[in-house]
Amino acid sequence: MKSSNNRPLILVTNDDGYKAKGIEALTAVAREFGDVVVMAAAESQSGKSHSITIKDPIRYKLLDTQAGLTRYVIRGTPADGVKLALCSILDRQPDLLLSGINHGTNSSTSVVYSGTMAAAIEGAIHQIPSIGFSILDYRPDADFSQSLPFLREIILRTLRDGLPAGTCLNVNIPAVSRELIRGIRLCRQTNGYWKEQFEIREDPRGAKYSWLTGSFINREPESKDTDEWALKNNYLSVVPVNTDFTDHSLLKELKNWETTTQRNESTR
Amino acid sequence: MKSSNNRPLILVTNDDGYKAKGIEALTAVAREFGDVVVMAAAESQSGKSHSITIKDPIRYKLLDTQAGLTRYVIRGTPADGVKLALCSILDRQPDLLLSGINHGTNSSTSVVYSGTMAAAIEGAIHQIPSIGFSILDYRPDADFSQSLPFLREIILRTLRDGLPAGTCLNVNIPAVSRELIRGIRLCRQTNGYWKEQFEIREDPRGAKYSWLTGSFINREPESKDTDEWALKNNYLSVVPVNTDFTDHSLLKELKNWETTTQRNESTR
Repeated sequence: MKSSNNRPLILVTNDDGYKAKGIEALTAVAREFGDVVVMAAAESQSGKSHSITIKDPIRYKLLDTQAGLTRYVIRGTPADGVKLALCSILDRQPDLLLSGINHGTNSSTSVVYSGTMAAAIEGAIHQIPSIGFSILDYRPDADFSQSLPFLREIILRTLRDGLPAGTCLNVNIPAVSRELIRGIRLCRQTNGYWKEQFEIREDPRGAKYSWLTGSFINREPESKDTDEWALKNNYLSVVPVNTDFTDHSLLKELKNWETTTQRNESTR
Repeated sequence: MKSSNNRPLILVTNDDGYKAKGIEALTAVAREFGDVVVMAAAESQSGKSHSITIKDPIRYKLLDTQAGLTRYVIRGTPADGVKLALCSILDRQPDLLLSGINHGTNSSTSVVYSGTMAAAIEGAIHQIPSIGFSILDYRPDADFSQSLPFLREIILRTLRDGLPAGTCLNVNIPAVSRELIRGIRLCRQTNGYWKEQFEIREDPRGAKYSWLTGSFINREPESKDTDEWALKNNYLSVVPVNTDFTDHSLLKELKNWETTTQRNESTR
């Protein structure tokens, strides 16, 4: 896709598939800021995390094109889509990558399971300012309009100031009307986890199978600097995510492991 | 699975499937330290990252059991397997989770695509001391024996000292003979990325399809504190990984975004 002017080039993707209302809303907002290329999956990729397709071929096609907007559909994961766009579709590195708006929360630990955030993380690895958006409403007809002024604010600031290389933003939106949204809150990822349950059933041939279900456990519901607290209190939460997962303080602590090995070496 | 004594309870998993030589080697080492439950996929789950199976049922079965070792096979992802073991199979939280030994590297940015590391990260989210092991040898008959003394050292220390809640270790092993291994090196994740290529082919019906291929680009080959440098220099690399992905320094920097929103609020 050739960008024919000086407008920012924006790559839009998601994990709910190209037909989802969330990507439609995000594409419309993105078009206010630049030329948009959409690369979205044919079908929902929820829970696919940062999967890449290495054992099956990937297929994609041009869906449609008009002034300032070109849309592709891919049979692959969100990470596949970002990789494909960057290396085969776009004629230059995009100025911004937007993923979502996901139907359902990606706050706290859900960032690791999320295809929406995987696309943003993939963008960040490629040093593109990238933002994943999610709304706390799983319904296909979720109302995105209430939060759009805040999204514009976040996109405008990111386009203007950029983000440090290797970082992206995880934005979650409370599912409330605009007058109840209290603003944007910069947060850290809540310490929490999904407490799983496997619901066991029997298929028509008598074999057992399980459905994965679960409920989210917040280990620190009182911490006001977390994304879960912000969302519970009707703020949009913005968590800056670093693609360097190294625990630098633990790294210092474990440095003494190295000496022991050298002892082993000398006695070997 | 009931643990009938005071030996540590160790959950072993991988992403190459229960038949892989790597999990066989890791299970044998784990049995030196405790009672072992293996939960591994029927087939390879490479590149599945932290996928969870939410739209299909999950099936699993007991493969075999003997004193101190019980093995299950799951039709699901590595993260599914850890979740299933924790909530439905084990009678208590395991003392240790070991994932691997993966056939192929999971250093640098590959941590985000890795099913091996997803299992370790899932364990860490559940506050289990967890370690992912990978060897720089993709061959099914990779030789794991050379590195076993180092693995024993790492497992022993982790069992003895534990790991801080929410952290795990990403261990990569150079594929060289033992006398060439220079020891264990504590490292940070290398700043790098996979530069993709999509190889386009035509199927028998004339439709185009692509294979995802690529090569790893190290953005900092001279940095001696990185895992890539350690591996290139024949060290085992150990990267402590934190499941809190928040970029805390960027969080401080972006705090001023909040005030702007309050301005918006007052003018609304």
